Amino acid sequence: MLVVMRKDATPEQIKGVVEAIEARGYKGHPIPGAQRTAIGITGNRGALEAPVFESLPGVLEVIPVSHAYKLVSREVKPEASVVEIGGVPVGGGGLVVTAGPCAVESLEQTLIVARAVKAAGAHLLRGGAFKPRTSPYSFQGLGEEGLRILAAAREETGLPVVTEAVDVEGVDLVERYADAIQIGARNMQNFSLLRRAGKAKKPVILKRGMSATLEEFLMSAEYILAEGNYAVVLCERGVRTFSDFSRNTLDLAIVPAVKNISHLPILVDPSHGTGRREKVAPLSRAAAAVGADGLMIEVHHDPNRALSDGPQSITPDMFETLMQDLRQIAPVIGRSL
Amino acid sequence: MLVVMRKDATPEQIKGVVEAIEARGYKGHPIPGAQRTAIGITGNRGALEAPVFESLPGVLEVIPVSHAYKLVSREVKPEASVVEIGGVPVGGGGLVVTAGPCAVESLEQTLIVARAVKAAGAHLLRGGAFKPRTSPYSFQGLGEEGLRILAAAREETGLPVVTEAVDVEGVDLVERYADAIQIGARNMQNFSLLRRAGKAKKPVILKRGMSATLEEFLMSAEYILAEGNYAVVLCERGVRTFSDFSRNTLDLAIVPAVKNISHLPILVDPSHGTGRREKVAPLSRAAAAVGADGLMIEVHHDPNRALSDGPQSITPDMFETLMQDLRQIAPVIGRSL
Amino acid sequence: MLVVMRKDATPEQIKGVVEAIEARGYKGHPIPGAQRTAIGITGNRGALEAPVFESLPGVLEVIPVSHAYKLVSREVKPEASVVEIGGVPVGGGGLVVTAGPCAVESLEQTLIVARAVKAAGAHLLRGGAFKPRTSPYSFQGLGEEGLRILAAAREETGLPVVTEAVDVEGVDLVERYADAIQIGARNMQNFSLLRRAGKAKKPVILKRGMSATLEEFLMSAEYILAEGNYAVVLCERGVRTFSDFSRNTLDLAIVPAVKNISHLPILVDPSHGTGRREKVAPLSRAAAAVGADGLMIEVHHDPNRALSDGPQSITPDMFETLMQDLRQIAPVIGRSL
Amino acid sequence: MLVVMRKDATPEQIKGVVEAIEARGYKGHPIPGAQRTAIGITGNRGALEAPVFESLPGVLEVIPVSHAYKLVSREVKPEASVVEIGGVPVGGGGLVVTAGPCAVESLEQTLIVARAVKAAGAHLLRGGAFKPRTSPYSFQGLGEEGLRILAAAREETGLPVVTEAVDVEGVDLVERYADAIQIGARNMQNFSLLRRAGKAKKPVILKRGMSATLEEFLMSAEYILAEGNYAVVLCERGVRTFSDFSRNTLDLAIVPAVKNISHLPILVDPSHGTGRREKVAPLSRAAAAVGADGLMIEVHHDPNRALSDGPQSITPDMFETLMQDLRQIAPVIGRSL
Repeated sequence: MLVVMRKDATPEQIKGVVEAIEARGYKGHPIPGAQRTAIGITGNRGALEAPVFESLPGVLEVIPVSHAYKLVSREVKPEASVVEIGGVPVGGGGLVVTAGPCAVESLEQTLIVARAVKAAGAHLLRGGAFKPRTSPYSFQGLGEEGLRILAAAREETGLPVVTEAVDVEGVDLVERYADAIQIGARNMQNFSLLRRAGKAKKPVILKRGMSATLEEFLMSAEYILAEGNYAVVLCERGVRTFSDFSRNTLDLAIVPAVKNISHLPILVDPSHGTGRREKVAPLSRAAAAVGADGLMIEVHHDPNRALSDGPQSITPDMFETLMQDLRQIAPVIGRSL
Repeated sequence: MLVVMRKDATPEQIKGVVEAIEARGYKGHPIPGAQRTAIGITGNRGALEAPVFESLPGVLEVIPVSHAYKLVSREVKPEASVVEIGGVPVGGGGLVVTAGPCAVESLEQTLIVARAVKAAGAHLLRGGAFKPRTSPYSFQGLGEEGLRILAAAREETGLPVVTEAVDVEGVDLVERYADAIQIGARNMQNFSLLRRAGKAKKPVILKRGMSATLEEFLMSAEYILAEGNYAVVLCERGVRTFSDFSRNTLDLAIVPAVKNISHLPILVDPSHGTGRREKVAPLSRAAAAVGADGLMIEVHHDPNRALSDGPQSITPDMFETLMQDLRQIAPVIGRSL
Repeated sequence: MLVVMRKDATPEQIKGVVEAIEARGYKGHPIPGAQRTAIGITGNRGALEAPVFESLPGVLEVIPVSHAYKLVSREVKPEASVVEIGGVPVGGGGLVVTAGPCAVESLEQTLIVARAVKAAGAHLLRGGAFKPRTSPYSFQGLGEEGLRILAAAREETGLPVVTEAVDVEGVDLVERYADAIQIGARNMQNFSLLRRAGKAKKPVILKRGMSATLEEFLMSAEYILAEGNYAVVLCERGVRTFSDFSRNTLDLAIVPAVKNISHLPILVDPSHGTGRREKVAPLSRAAAAVGADGLMIEVHHDPNRALSDGPQSITPDMFETLMQDLRQIAPVIGRSL
Repeated sequence: MLVVMRKDATPEQIKGVVEAIEARGYKGHPIPGAQRTAIGITGNRGALEAPVFESLPGVLEVIPVSHAYKLVSREVKPEASVVEIGGVPVGGGGLVVTAGPCAVESLEQTLIVARAVKAAGAHLLRGGAFKPRTSPYSFQGLGEEGLRILAAAREETGLPVVTEAVDVEGVDLVERYADAIQIGARNMQNFSLLRRAGKAKKPVILKRGMSATLEEFLMSAEYILAEGNYAVVLCERGVRTFSDFSRNTLDLAIVPAVKNISHLPILVDPSHGTGRREKVAPLSRAAAAVGADGLMIEVHHDPNRALSDGPQSITPDMFETLMQDLRQIAPVIGRSL
């Protein structure tokens, strides 16, 4: 942390700030400049809790320097992490494709889609049994019955299953039936849920909140790691902006940013990230080209009758064409598919 | 919902859309224009689930018309709701001030602050026992011990107590000790928590999520009402923007917007809304002047030593001065304080 | 500027950064901490042009410390500036109300509105002769004829005139006819226009750009001052967000923020800031209560027939009621109206 | 436009709205629904100027339906436009790469970079002679001298030249020396400049404003086409969000969105779009994969000494590697490079 003094700060005021720093057990390092003095603070472990120095006399502003995340940082673990989901490595040299319906609607629907995405080359099956919906009057998912259907689809296709848990009780169930627990964007800062996921025996896919900074995103992952579960995969799914042409704004630059400061793998979800079927394939190709470790894509064999998020689901045919494109892009960035 | 056809849409395509609408049990009303045809849809109850018509041949775009909220709407209940919190009416002709520390740190600290805000004229005591924190390494609150302290402060000052619950288990405890259950911004779309709050016997203060639209905010309130708890108070606390000078951007225009379409009362929290002590009083005055039903303000007798959110807490002295200002502003908008 | 080194940075890398700093004529101050070393840079005048140190070996990140603005800063001029517009002081103890139609449509319309706002107590007359419109097919203003009409309205009412210039040529004309030159939000970073306004003999009202940070807003004002025109008044008019209920999000917290770091006066425009007639009065009251030096309000005697921005214009009756409210709020913040 | 009535609207109120519509020369089409009546408006050419119907008795809300753009729309011209810049076709089957320094600093610097990007396969040379800078104290470009240097670099390398004009006078000069006129993000709604560019004899590259919607972006292009210059190329360069890890948020989803509704070509500028050197190559690959017609990339042989935007410039070596990657991605989306 750096305390910047006003130009007209007196030597007494500078001394006062240094004393305030030292009273908290840290060390203050005044740096006298031509125009003003800045005071560096060292001796703290992690980020200082709050800019308590801002209201001291003579202080112009306080600038945070340290970050609060530790376990997720590449400084702590320089090599990239590989997280295994049902035997499928995420974060290594592959481009991992997770595909399936937004919501599990029936055994038949799930099997149709699961077989189709398997045939096209998907590695993991996604599908929602617990659906967080903006409206209480919308379809909220089949619950445990949905989990049983997903397990049956895994049985038949061999695809490991990824599905969302929306509360602490749900993690118990998802942990039992699925191969990875997804935490959705709306729950990215549901800290009770994160802590419970941190105690789970299954890997966790953590989606970025709709207006989460990178710092907050990594801090939420840190909650899970801090409880002992190191098998965390991040997932970008678009942020909220003023856009008048897509449901969210897919923020692909976060992929190289995460790679730079964290060892965790990161997926991209272009289905929620755009909200529009015709944009899913172009943004999927872009996500692969930017260097993501994988994709999460909603596929439905009859999207116009889907109970949830139909307009952003692509058909099995579109998915197959997309997979062919991805197979050509993957080697450009040194990945296999 | 309105389906807008492309200029070059054929009569067959228009007919196809009408048939698709009617196949779903609704009615289609073509409106032929000079340049293009639009087709109105009626017969639906509430908002149509999804723009399934977008991918039909000849369709340019689909425009939603209905809103999905019902119980929160002024169309359903034209007169403004008054919610009683421990006997204090919120939403009537008064300007209700909720004040207290961000976090309950100790009995002594809580009593000092509670006495001070009571003396200055506050109506409700706020204080956090369960703190949702971005970092797992930050102070997370005293838990049930904090609730006992709040109850003791109520005992002494007579101020009803408002405190946050961050998970379903927490609601059980908060319901037992406090007079109103606060749902924080990060949990605005934690639907399991909303449903549990909807079954609570105490009023709920629902804070707006950091990037929530008004539609989403009201839909989250709708979750609570739909479970049978009609005692809901909304609270604006700032939204996330690109601002380089405040932690959040306090969106005061939501107050008249809510008043226009909903019967629920709405408070403003200028402490989180700005994140900076020196902005709390000016924005509190603004919130009163814009017509809010009340304020939530963080007060700490020694903000530089606060365990949480010190930089946005004001001192008891600042609070007293602010209350005097508010007493002059309240009558301008026809309120008493 | 502060250069933060990686935890594993070697002494050679630290030395390399210090040498790079000194090669540019500055001084480097290493601050060794428990976990990492930070290096302060002094000797620069103003903000360093660019984070050129970011790519040096061992560097984790570079944090800017200085701000680039000078002349607008309270550090340079501690006392608040008072800008006279046609004899009306803006920035002193008064609450200055600028009112009038969005666009000048005719002499008759302008006179009707000018007389009405004068009668209600407005201090300055606003009205657009050059209108920046999103669409090339919208009414673009009457041009010089509009300026003549405004001058005639001043003649009759005695109200000094504020009007927008949208290009360098327009400043010549506006300077001749009006009492203050308005630079609109879309032109906040039209630097040629700012430089020309900096050479004008009339005061300038500079509106905040739709997504401008405070730093950028002040830097644009700095352009004008740097050319020698110190008579600059800032104006907040709402920023672009994801809001689904107002055209822009009025960011009232910028008022105390500007007061804190700049000596320039600041107005608030709740008409553009909300885009909705029914929100203009509440947000005007809020802007007064937050401490703005004045307001800019669009008034039209027949808003439903206005050629521009009708939906955000209030009627003369609504304006009169608002002025009565403002007269009660002004003294609360120590202002006269 | 669709006028939605309140549930309790009376038949008289509905009649009143229809009459108000017809008084303006349009036609009103009431659509009675189970819960409420909506009234469609036809007979208007283009978008209706303003929601004047919102304040009529019984009206709940007014929903715009038509768009105001015409000439840029695919409805007017279904086939994609190809714009020739100095003989290089933009918008056909190729992936056009524009590269060069942010600012023209000297003949020597410009030649070094121009030769390097030419050797690596770039099609167009970019470089700024007039630089719009946030600070009046930053390097503002060499002006006409810079244009002469660019012309000399074209002479030697054969690369057509793209450079920005920041005001009406600048267009005269740029038109004389360069092959395409760039309008920067800050000037996207500088309508005087757009009109002048619409009269130019050279193609125009229009960058998206920092917070421009797609509608506004296309309307600004419409200004240029409406003056008779149909040679317009759009360019996405990132929008302003709350991001804490990149200067702007590159919004790649706009590429398929533009392709869907407009015939104009669109480039992507990942240099400004990210502001960070290490993100330029990944986002360039992503932009190619999403289907952009080309890229604008800042290259500098000594970025740490660049007078402008050094941190976002890549080196000639990085550029060459990137070009090799792009050559592999282009065929995946059916383009040649």
